[in-house]
Amino acid sequence: MELIVEVLMITTGGSRIAILSEQSANLLGVHSSDRIKITCNNQEMIAIANIAAHFPQNRIGLYEETVAALGVKEDEKVKVQLAPLPESLFNIRAKLHGERLLEKDIMAIVKDVVERHLSTVEIAAFLTALSIHGLSTGETEALSRAMISTGKTLSFGKGPILDKHSVGGIPGDKTSMIVVPIVAAAGFTIPKTSSRAITSPAGTADRVETLCPVNLSINEIKNVVAKTNGCLVWGGSLELAPADDLFIQVEYPLGIDPMLLPSILSKKKAIGATHVVIDIPTGMGAKIKTRTEAYALASDFVDLGKRLGLNIQCALTYGDQPLGCGIGPALEAKEALMTLMGGGPPDLREKAVSLSSMLFEMVGVENSRAMAEDMIDSGKAMKKMREIIAAQGGNPAVKPEDLPVGHESAVMRSELAGKVLWLSTDDIVRIAREAGAPKEKGAGVVLHAKLGGTVHKNGVLFEIYAERSSKLASALELAGQLSPIVLSKKPEEKMILDRIPEKITREKTFMLDR
Amino acid sequence: MELIVEVLMITTGGSRIAILSEQSANLLGVHSSDRIKITCNNQEMIAIANIAAHFPQNRIGLYEETVAALGVKEDEKVKVQLAPLPESLFNIRAKLHGERLLEKDIMAIVKDVVERHLSTVEIAAFLTALSIHGLSTGETEALSRAMISTGKTLSFGKGPILDKHSVGGIPGDKTSMIVVPIVAAAGFTIPKTSSRAITSPAGTADRVETLCPVNLSINEIKNVVAKTNGCLVWGGSLELAPADDLFIQVEYPLGIDPMLLPSILSKKKAIGATHVVIDIPTGMGAKIKTRTEAYALASDFVDLGKRLGLNIQCALTYGDQPLGCGIGPALEAKEALMTLMGGGPPDLREKAVSLSSMLFEMVGVENSRAMAEDMIDSGKAMKKMREIIAAQGGNPAVKPEDLPVGHESAVMRSELAGKVLWLSTDDIVRIAREAGAPKEKGAGVVLHAKLGGTVHKNGVLFEIYAERSSKLASALELAGQLSPIVLSKKPEEKMILDRIPEKITREKTFMLDR
Repeated sequence: MELIVEVLMITTGGSRIAILSEQSANLLGVHSSDRIKITCNNQEMIAIANIAAHFPQNRIGLYEETVAALGVKEDEKVKVQLAPLPESLFNIRAKLHGERLLEKDIMAIVKDVVERHLSTVEIAAFLTALSIHGLSTGETEALSRAMISTGKTLSFGKGPILDKHSVGGIPGDKTSMIVVPIVAAAGFTIPKTSSRAITSPAGTADRVETLCPVNLSINEIKNVVAKTNGCLVWGGSLELAPADDLFIQVEYPLGIDPMLLPSILSKKKAIGATHVVIDIPTGMGAKIKTRTEAYALASDFVDLGKRLGLNIQCALTYGDQPLGCGIGPALEAKEALMTLMGGGPPDLREKAVSLSSMLFEMVGVENSRAMAEDMIDSGKAMKKMREIIAAQGGNPAVKPEDLPVGHESAVMRSELAGKVLWLSTDDIVRIAREAGAPKEKGAGVVLHAKLGGTVHKNGVLFEIYAERSSKLASALELAGQLSPIVLSKKPEEKMILDRIPEKITREKTFMLDR
Repeated sequence: MELIVEVLMITTGGSRIAILSEQSANLLGVHSSDRIKITCNNQEMIAIANIAAHFPQNRIGLYEETVAALGVKEDEKVKVQLAPLPESLFNIRAKLHGERLLEKDIMAIVKDVVERHLSTVEIAAFLTALSIHGLSTGETEALSRAMISTGKTLSFGKGPILDKHSVGGIPGDKTSMIVVPIVAAAGFTIPKTSSRAITSPAGTADRVETLCPVNLSINEIKNVVAKTNGCLVWGGSLELAPADDLFIQVEYPLGIDPMLLPSILSKKKAIGATHVVIDIPTGMGAKIKTRTEAYALASDFVDLGKRLGLNIQCALTYGDQPLGCGIGPALEAKEALMTLMGGGPPDLREKAVSLSSMLFEMVGVENSRAMAEDMIDSGKAMKKMREIIAAQGGNPAVKPEDLPVGHESAVMRSELAGKVLWLSTDDIVRIAREAGAPKEKGAGVVLHAKLGGTVHKNGVLFEIYAERSSKLASALELAGQLSPIVLSKKPEEKMILDRIPEKITREKTFMLDR
């Protein structure tokens, strides 16, 4: 059937969708969510049909992605026919029934996800089935390989390529901004890609962006790494594992993440990493609450790493409270610079030095911890950071106090004196986000009280920073409702930390960072 | 945030979707597939947000369903804010983790499905989880009740209300068109709603539509039943169980149907039925292949019926080949009229009489079979059918030969003489659909050879009818490629029926009719 193109100036977020009238759909024998083949100028494309009740009968509506993929213009004529169901859909149905999939079946699914031949309904069913039935190690490996082979890869040639990844979960974790310059300053290659915040007040890409651009092309990254041994860039637009961007869109509302391991390690492999430290923050304030969970996840990482030829070590790190004091993009970048200059909060320095030292050990460095300490104390790490900032297009002379922290601020004080017995990272995150983080880069929270610390009556618990007074006001209102920091003289004097159902009792679901 | 409405003249097929620019989404803290609350003129509505890259920043794009639900006009201002996740999403997540759901959890899910608060991704995850984990009888009952209470219901007052449903699967099954007038002629009430074909060459609604309108409102149905005791209408637009229309859209591409039982019985209950016969065609040519499957399904129907206060009996019927000879809407309606007039193929008459007699028995009629036979032989059933046709707005004087059968036809003959050993219903369905059925109502196939029957050399195997010569040509081409009817003199002389992979070996997945 010939139809006339109607360009809909709307993006669908990736899916290739075409709109047919009911009449055309009937004549073609197309039902909603069936595939159609659209042909034009010897180009052909598969799209998923949406059927609209009042759409003009002789037209086909194409969203921006579909227009771009086919290269058509408004009012052009295209040929439209019913397309067969993709083979991969039968593999998904097999997984629904609990079958183990072969490498070629998984390859077919991932390829069709990337080429947009599968609808979000079908991807949702696949991920739900994976989440319920679980993945065999063979399936996990096959998914990783399929995600690598459908994406771009990078190669830095020489020597070991080091990398570091955190599954996330504690606010204020700006460790990568210190580990990368330490490792690069020691002469090792560390091309670090990071994500932006989804539910947290800042991701590493958001933090680094207050110092320099992070949205670099693959060629630009190669140049930066050639000059400096390292980089701190946003991984989101590099298409290292484009299937993952589509999987995560579907997983996010469902609160499931069966693809976590393949997602993380396929990206490490795609960037050419050979030695990787995975940080698993574990504790009350982290996504991973118990050591049992953490050990299980860690051993899965190590196993999958072996299968993919990656040398992996996992670090279970203290996750009962935020790391350092600053929470919010600029506040965190400031703290990272101070730490690289030899100051900063001790927990942050300790964690960055320990993780760097693990990486050094993995590539055979003796006195690895001393080397990591030395990179900071000698000023080499700070110098390296300035080189990286310059290479990515930022100002290498930047000082911590130059960073644009929100002009609007308020101080939350304690009505009592005592020691900090309990600190809710969830509440701190909510207050920082209410103040505007991560979109408003100067917004956030600075903690003055941390677990076990002493607070005087009227002493400062935390400060709130915002870029707009309205945001500060609503963050302050929220802070007044919540009690993120609980004090007592001795634990036994204050056994009730919180009362339920006075607070929202629904457990928050997290997505681990990848 | 205030945004200006941009009306998108497109229907989404039910979902309430709003389009935001990236900038607006960022300011609101909305991610793709998050919900937003839209407020206008004291009306408020929840919609699912789609984020578009190049959408005007100060506007919100609303699809037709969303515009209608909110009653807004182009360029009107609306207030938009991030809405919390619906409670039912947490119930879906619980089901993903294998938990049993309570009646109130299921009610919340079904209500949010009907009110479009859940996205297709979330509905797909729910149905996948149900399909994998299975449903407890309590969950099945709760789903049925939730589907009834979120839909419309009918009440015909007096006495027992009889009904009949087939889970479908054999082509040519026009039994309902004979059972309804038999039962109604005997003085019982039988308000029959039917579906249209999705993957078959004709549904009962498609067949009846060649005689009279089937798209009646609830009030029109009440009038028809008050006048005639029965009706033969399309159930699709009555909103008896609107949740089901949304579930089936998602289940269809996945080839799963965890909602089959609640779907069928909630509609029977909504129409006020008290006594129901469920026909389960079983055999090589049906959707249900084995007696084991059929018995399991039958006992589930009976159990759920008891819980819902419905008296149910199931009939396992012969399903190795099509029923009767005509396949395609008009060809089947013609055969049904001939059967009501005392002629027609014997298997069709036998099945209709048996099912009617089961219904009579269930309501205490003695000599139930004789009563059913008598309704046909006395002409009362045919008279009743003419009353129903008239009441629904058709021509009561219609004769079988008046029905508009396709002008283009061809005869397929046998190259051999022998007995029919094997007959592929799948192939017959494909040929009938290729000829134009069900959209072209005169198209289809008439079988002259049936299992065990004798065919002479050059004897007629089947005829193909089409409304257009191009459709006839492609149906003929397909018939030449397939061998839908296999003959032999004695079975032992022709043990190989088919060769694989010469034919498409992928097993066809069916949806049972509901």
